[in-house]
Amino acid sequence: MKVLIIGAAGMIGRKLTGRLVRDGKLAGKAITHAHLVDIVTPQAPADAPFPVSLDAFDIAASYAAAKLVAPRPDVIFLLASIVSGEAEADFDKGYAINLGGTHSIFEAIRREQALSGGAYRPRLIFTSSIAVYGAPFPDKIGDEFLAAPLTSYGTQKAICELLLADYSRRGFFDGIGLRLPTICVRPGLPNKAASGFFSGIIREPLAGKEAILPVGDDVRHWHASPRAAIGFLLRAAELDLSLLGARRSLSLPGVSVTVGEQIEALRAIAGDKTVALIRRQPDETIIRIVAGWARDFDPARAKSLGFQADASFSAIIKAHIEDELNG
Amino acid sequence: MKVLIIGAAGMIGRKLTGRLVRDGKLAGKAITHAHLVDIVTPQAPADAPFPVSLDAFDIAASYAAAKLVAPRPDVIFLLASIVSGEAEADFDKGYAINLGGTHSIFEAIRREQALSGGAYRPRLIFTSSIAVYGAPFPDKIGDEFLAAPLTSYGTQKAICELLLADYSRRGFFDGIGLRLPTICVRPGLPNKAASGFFSGIIREPLAGKEAILPVGDDVRHWHASPRAAIGFLLRAAELDLSLLGARRSLSLPGVSVTVGEQIEALRAIAGDKTVALIRRQPDETIIRIVAGWARDFDPARAKSLGFQADASFSAIIKAHIEDELNG
Repeated sequence: MKVLIIGAAGMIGRKLTGRLVRDGKLAGKAITHAHLVDIVTPQAPADAPFPVSLDAFDIAASYAAAKLVAPRPDVIFLLASIVSGEAEADFDKGYAINLGGTHSIFEAIRREQALSGGAYRPRLIFTSSIAVYGAPFPDKIGDEFLAAPLTSYGTQKAICELLLADYSRRGFFDGIGLRLPTICVRPGLPNKAASGFFSGIIREPLAGKEAILPVGDDVRHWHASPRAAIGFLLRAAELDLSLLGARRSLSLPGVSVTVGEQIEALRAIAGDKTVALIRRQPDETIIRIVAGWARDFDPARAKSLGFQADASFSAIIKAHIEDELNG
Repeated sequence: MKVLIIGAAGMIGRKLTGRLVRDGKLAGKAITHAHLVDIVTPQAPADAPFPVSLDAFDIAASYAAAKLVAPRPDVIFLLASIVSGEAEADFDKGYAINLGGTHSIFEAIRREQALSGGAYRPRLIFTSSIAVYGAPFPDKIGDEFLAAPLTSYGTQKAICELLLADYSRRGFFDGIGLRLPTICVRPGLPNKAASGFFSGIIREPLAGKEAILPVGDDVRHWHASPRAAIGFLLRAAELDLSLLGARRSLSLPGVSVTVGEQIEALRAIAGDKTVALIRRQPDETIIRIVAGWARDFDPARAKSLGFQADASFSAIIKAHIEDELNG
């Protein structure tokens, strides 16, 4: 089985690559080739049991999609997009990459299918986002609630979900869209995302560093560990997608906790001294942005299809300690 | 006030033009110019109290949108699209016109706003469709139900709704999307639309002609007269669109009736002999298509914003007799 990962240099892309290298297979089939692509050349994984090719492409470039699809990969992980803040700051770039780039890959698959006389029909796994939802919403967002995004990023993801459903319905590919919860604990350096503090207040104190908490302890949000996210991608690769019917995108299971509950979970694992490194410094801009975010979901469809959340926020912290801090 | 109607040669476009010519104003302001555009040159209205210019453009042509927007119309009615059956039969054409053409007009407005130093921000009234909804759905579709279209046409409309909301949120224009009920009674010749019989079983018998009924009497559907549709467009032109918040598209009020109820309303108005011209001839294809269509809505938002449905299906028939058959 040939695998293409678009967005392979990002955090999820690197972890997915690592997992595929360890497993040597996907959906029960041996991987015969992996093509790793991002806007910058991804790092070659060490000790891969299959050949790996690396490429740097901007999916907004008009020639890129055809080149990526021409080798006819069996499974395509489409993880590439610019983040919410950048898509809001740069309208043209957000639409060009997050909508135009994705659409051009869908179109390239359609053309490749035509060239193959109809034989080519890959599985396409697209990472969408809970940003397709915008306030006002119920305490728990159900599977039939409307997508009414409040950002250009969320709009672009919602549009790609609609395209993915139509291209799948028409048989051009077998697609699934995954609305990932906010990934927590994100490893690496603090970033400027408005959501960054959800990870920062765990990751930084565990590393002995101060973390800024810009919102109140009562803010509730929806989380999944990087480990759970990789589990979602692998489940999407093996699932019989006809079970989705026409509705090809899913809100995935997560852990709904308040910031206060996050902090108490950290205290139980790492103690008062660690928690004391969290400094409360309210930021009105971030408070306002976060107020528009989903707090909780009832992801009944995804659960019934075997997608599994982390067991608790404590489990999310422990996964971070095991996977990033060598236990 | 300068008005641009894109799709002016269609049934709704012609009726809207006629109404603007009669009124001489829109949203309480005198019309100073009307630009009527369609894929074929629209007919010039007789006795218009304002100057009218006519043009033929394919909105899928890359140069078209900029030309349409350059005169900076104050109100743009964007009615143009190819119909559901054609968008399903011709994937490329449907996306090029219904999505690409609409998006290019949105983009042309954004560029024109930049050229104007931010001053230009027209009102944009877009006709969407209840085809953004796909089965399974509740008996009455509420304002928070997800858009999960089962056709490429419905997908294209749902995507345009998302774009319209984002472009409005960013301030590029002041947009509203109107999910029109099925228009009944459509005047003119029978067409090949799967929905054509809903009008045909009224229009043809009233003209002394036989009509084919391809579905059962228990099929329920959602209707508005052409007169109500024009009322929706005029209401959209005068409404304070900030009342919509971020959710810029509305399911509009309609009349939910079964085919049997349609027939009984016709009988009460035109008698048994007229009804006897309806010939039952089940068509499995049409039965299957129609089974996926919305039956009823709870359009609470649109009602609260002053959009008014026809009073009953009898009123819809009477409007047809008054407007099309000279009473």
